[in-house]
Amino acid sequence: MAVYTEVSDEALTAFLAAYDIGGLLSYKGIAEGVENTNFFLHTTAGSYILTLYEKRVRVDDLPFFLNLMEHLATRGLACPQPIRNRGGVALGELCGRPAVIVSFLEGVSVRRPTPDQCRALGQALAGLHAAGSDFGMRRDNNLSVAAWGPLFRGAEAQADGVSPGLADRVRGDLAVLEAGWPRGLPTGVIHADLFTDNVFFIGDDLSGLIDFYFACTDAFAYDLAICLNAWCFDADGTFHHDRGAALIAGYEAVRPLTPDEVAALPILCRGAALRFLLTRLVDWLNVPPGALVQPKDPLEYDRRLTFHRGATRAEDYGRAA
Amino acid sequence: MAVYTEVSDEALTAFLAAYDIGGLLSYKGIAEGVENTNFFLHTTAGSYILTLYEKRVRVDDLPFFLNLMEHLATRGLACPQPIRNRGGVALGELCGRPAVIVSFLEGVSVRRPTPDQCRALGQALAGLHAAGSDFGMRRDNNLSVAAWGPLFRGAEAQADGVSPGLADRVRGDLAVLEAGWPRGLPTGVIHADLFTDNVFFIGDDLSGLIDFYFACTDAFAYDLAICLNAWCFDADGTFHHDRGAALIAGYEAVRPLTPDEVAALPILCRGAALRFLLTRLVDWLNVPPGALVQPKDPLEYDRRLTFHRGATRAEDYGRAA
Repeated sequence: MAVYTEVSDEALTAFLAAYDIGGLLSYKGIAEGVENTNFFLHTTAGSYILTLYEKRVRVDDLPFFLNLMEHLATRGLACPQPIRNRGGVALGELCGRPAVIVSFLEGVSVRRPTPDQCRALGQALAGLHAAGSDFGMRRDNNLSVAAWGPLFRGAEAQADGVSPGLADRVRGDLAVLEAGWPRGLPTGVIHADLFTDNVFFIGDDLSGLIDFYFACTDAFAYDLAICLNAWCFDADGTFHHDRGAALIAGYEAVRPLTPDEVAALPILCRGAALRFLLTRLVDWLNVPPGALVQPKDPLEYDRRLTFHRGATRAEDYGRAA
Repeated sequence: MAVYTEVSDEALTAFLAAYDIGGLLSYKGIAEGVENTNFFLHTTAGSYILTLYEKRVRVDDLPFFLNLMEHLATRGLACPQPIRNRGGVALGELCGRPAVIVSFLEGVSVRRPTPDQCRALGQALAGLHAAGSDFGMRRDNNLSVAAWGPLFRGAEAQADGVSPGLADRVRGDLAVLEAGWPRGLPTGVIHADLFTDNVFFIGDDLSGLIDFYFACTDAFAYDLAICLNAWCFDADGTFHHDRGAALIAGYEAVRPLTPDEVAALPILCRGAALRFLLTRLVDWLNVPPGALVQPKDPLEYDRRLTFHRGATRAEDYGRAA
């Protein structure tokens, strides 16, 4: 959460001259987004978010993300809509960085989601999967099962220093996941990072989904598994069955799961937990000097994995039997 | 620039229940303010800034700052207006910190002020001095000449490591300033920190003054001297005569300087530069481990002092002869 790139009033005014969104009233750097610099932007035409993409974002991927947001917003999904400039282009450059203006969404991220909020999330997630079904671009998930072994090998030697026995536990998970990872499940555009920070509510009404910068083409049920991890556990690893039940029921009210997806749910949840354990572990072990961002605790996902290792059926996650 | 205190949706909703400003729509931590945590807050009633005061702010001073902002806003000055809760109280507590909601001001801070913007600043500064003339509270300036010697002694041994010869230069300035600091000038409420970040413009129109957390009771002309330092020099120490002329003329269009103030302007400018040199130097030498804030370069003020040491008359700063 930081402003990595300072933007002067002169640079911003020159940038905005190419857009048809009125005169500049105010802009504030906002302390959100681990990867990019974001400004809240207010013009005479309304409220926007201005994002400058920093080094970790692959510029080649930006057209996928931006076209996807535009596609989803056009189909009525409440997500940021990229604003095209007068030349019809959404992706610009500001202060030497790729930069985009998107519409601002009202709403608040919840810390401790209620079952009702989980149900609303499930419905929105299925709505996203439906709205993306006719999206024409494809982006492989470069953080799926094939990436986990290499990720782990870069952190393996230091893993037990983070938590005794962690390396052995991860080796066990990897063996199971690499051998049994499901293939052939229904696939399409998934969000792949729908944590509570990326979902806005006004009261119990879901008002928007943001941060599509991990979106990719993968199994729909894997997206649901990510949400079960992100929304239905406490930091100590306690699973909230009522939240899981509401999340799955909300999803299936819009898009019922196939029998294969139901059967795969436990291993997908275990894989999703390992994915976040591994990326957090690598970040934890590689905090750059002078970092403005506090790394997230990888062990939250080690504790969730304790639950997943013992789960065998979708019912364990709250799906109606 | 950082969010030092995280505020959950639940804590904020409970806090807002005591206020009559509608329902919560969104809030974002903003990367502004070196000392405090600030959120942009949007409710069904409008836009606000929520400030949580962190450790460096003396809680005993908060009533002075908040009453002053209310006093000035009531007299038509464009500054943040503290919002009182249903109990009539502006100062609350949130997440264990003193906390206040103030009205949001539109506008943009300029990096390189034009003479027209300097003139507008001068008018606003004199307007602030006039609007504060019947303010009933008093707060001594604890960063004036009596504080500079003690501040310097805490940094003296390391000063030459920051810039060769710096300790000698500061000793010379201190001797001149302590011997010749003017007494008996017209006095009242001054802002004392009116840097470009604390002044908003929409185009060339000044739309607001913010950040009154150094405000105190001191000589009006010292406030003008701070602005001359903050607005009329480049980082390399170059003085812009046209900006200084416009700033002083704008000020005097509202409140003409007395002959004593005119005569004192060079030494006041030199003192103001030393004040910022010294506080920046102390911060520079005492960056805490894990600091989220980059300290400001003290040597910018060393370079301005080169100019001030050679200035003898108000005309050197652009005042009409």
